[in-house]
Amino acid sequence: MTYTTYPAYYLKDFTRSVFMHFGVPEEDALQAADVLHKADVRGIDSHGVARLRTYVDMFRIGRINPKPQVRIVRERKSVATVDGDSGLGLVVGPKANAIAMDKAAEFGSGWVSVCNTNHYGIASYYSLQALEKDMIGWSMTNSSKIVVPLWGAERRLGTNPISIAFPAHSNPPVVIDMSTSVVAFGKIEQAKRQGGLVPVGWMIDKKGDSTINPEDIFDDGALLPLGSTRELGGHKGYALSAMVDILSCVLSGANWGPFAPPFALFEKAPEESVGKGIGHFFGAMEIAGFEDVEVFKKRMDHWIEVFRATKPAPGQEAVLIPGDPEHETEVIRTRDGVPVIDAVVKDLESISKETGVAF
Amino acid sequence: MTYTTYPAYYLKDFTRSVFMHFGVPEEDALQAADVLHKADVRGIDSHGVARLRTYVDMFRIGRINPKPQVRIVRERKSVATVDGDSGLGLVVGPKANAIAMDKAAEFGSGWVSVCNTNHYGIASYYSLQALEKDMIGWSMTNSSKIVVPLWGAERRLGTNPISIAFPAHSNPPVVIDMSTSVVAFGKIEQAKRQGGLVPVGWMIDKKGDSTINPEDIFDDGALLPLGSTRELGGHKGYALSAMVDILSCVLSGANWGPFAPPFALFEKAPEESVGKGIGHFFGAMEIAGFEDVEVFKKRMDHWIEVFRATKPAPGQEAVLIPGDPEHETEVIRTRDGVPVIDAVVKDLESISKETGVAF
Repeated sequence: MTYTTYPAYYLKDFTRSVFMHFGVPEEDALQAADVLHKADVRGIDSHGVARLRTYVDMFRIGRINPKPQVRIVRERKSVATVDGDSGLGLVVGPKANAIAMDKAAEFGSGWVSVCNTNHYGIASYYSLQALEKDMIGWSMTNSSKIVVPLWGAERRLGTNPISIAFPAHSNPPVVIDMSTSVVAFGKIEQAKRQGGLVPVGWMIDKKGDSTINPEDIFDDGALLPLGSTRELGGHKGYALSAMVDILSCVLSGANWGPFAPPFALFEKAPEESVGKGIGHFFGAMEIAGFEDVEVFKKRMDHWIEVFRATKPAPGQEAVLIPGDPEHETEVIRTRDGVPVIDAVVKDLESISKETGVAF
Repeated sequence: MTYTTYPAYYLKDFTRSVFMHFGVPEEDALQAADVLHKADVRGIDSHGVARLRTYVDMFRIGRINPKPQVRIVRERKSVATVDGDSGLGLVVGPKANAIAMDKAAEFGSGWVSVCNTNHYGIASYYSLQALEKDMIGWSMTNSSKIVVPLWGAERRLGTNPISIAFPAHSNPPVVIDMSTSVVAFGKIEQAKRQGGLVPVGWMIDKKGDSTINPEDIFDDGALLPLGSTRELGGHKGYALSAMVDILSCVLSGANWGPFAPPFALFEKAPEESVGKGIGHFFGAMEIAGFEDVEVFKKRMDHWIEVFRATKPAPGQEAVLIPGDPEHETEVIRTRDGVPVIDAVVKDLESISKETGVAF
């Protein structure tokens, strides 16, 4: 696979201009571009400019409202439900997360469930924002069905990620960002592209039997939840995914479980709707409400250093801290640029042609 | 294995009297007994009267303060840090959880991190309490080290459970209660007792190599985090366990990670202390702050019914809802009594002899 390296700001500028082409106001377009930019610099390539084509498709079919009026529909001090007015998740998400952080500044914590929204990018974008305010950040979202509940033979849940981030003093923050399925969908696509098989425990075929053939995912197969089997704790991954689904959707009135509308054109839309759009859930807790901020951050340094110093298992170099790989990539790519694979470069070029935005 | 069945209230009365024998005030003793009782009726046998011997041991060596002054040491509206004054976790936990629920009643949500406490029983006892107030309940705790971080060769974390519970209208609630390790320690003990091996993915030996010999856990082996290996998502189980550790301990000033004091006499105490006791984390969110309670509960019914109706995988009867098995057991055991295995009956008899409390 060959790639071209672009300065991160160049990709971000292009993204912003493309969103503006579809009628997104400049400030919102910049915000949306910043979410994709963060994915690109942190090395979560599947969620950066590689997704721009899909956002463009969604604008073209009128699924996304370029000028949403994001509003609180119900609230009580530290909690609220927000309606995203069918906007870009990349715009609705930051606004809803800001409401959670404002509530945390006033009430010690803030918790916002969001309906009527769309794909919001990487979950950790939002938890990282809280760190800038000395808060602990939480972020979750549902997505269209691709995962089975344990013992099920049909798709019922999205990969439903959870992110939570904790700041440290002299070390990079601890940033957890994980899908609740055993792997993300991109891993299956990658195996297919490379013509290989996938490990036992990742997938089932359309009959519900275990499979190692990545092609099966395109024939009504499904991903397994984290834990894979009953023996290895697949009921736990299913439970975590259910938690994300309920907090993000059942609480807010979004489409939960199998009813989540698809994010990509090639996915079939569910026949029934049980709510509005997809759902997110954001949380922020003010550290100072629990402990002196400096004391907490220095304890976090100690925690990180003890875990980093864990004796490694045979054949392993070291135990990592959640967020370490992404942090290292962010340092490198912010300095050296973002490598973009040819297929994505072609996508960006065709978007440029369609929209007239120079690339 | 043979067992004797006792009425649930009989075991609860005995437990309460034993705690009172050690100087616990009657109201607190009844509360503590209620936590063990809940584990017994819900079929989480490892956490009910089977643990009474360990609590008795802890009282004997003076590790537990029978009359703790549980107090808020820092707070800001919806959040607080609580010091458990070295009391029984079974007493400190309910008091701290009550603070979280009181805050939720006043501010829409309440979040409490607790230090200077001890083993608190089943995590779901606390999340279930929130349901009675039409709240969503959260509960987490750390425990003494037995789990490795992914790629580590030494114990660094407890089995660090997470519980969250959501009420429904006509269905039993969705109750998630899961350790963040691939299995709980009891599963290894069980395999050892039965002279069998354990599945690949549960354990490592003291060198950090994968093992299927349950004996290895008693020779400095360790449990793997949920996900087991990098390929199957072991970094995710490690991250979840880290989250529980940080929220429960780093935030409150309790002993985190490998420094958690042991709960059983046979476990070696860590050489260093970095805080006070172990830690818990409780949360409560008022449903009415997000949505009309009846509307939410009926949506939960729909969610439950759709998931229950998932087409099952070949060889499986049905997809379960988190909390289903425990709910069914609770109905049966509340009516028919709690079966107690001989070894535990002997424990209770010896406690009876030592304390003079009739059994």
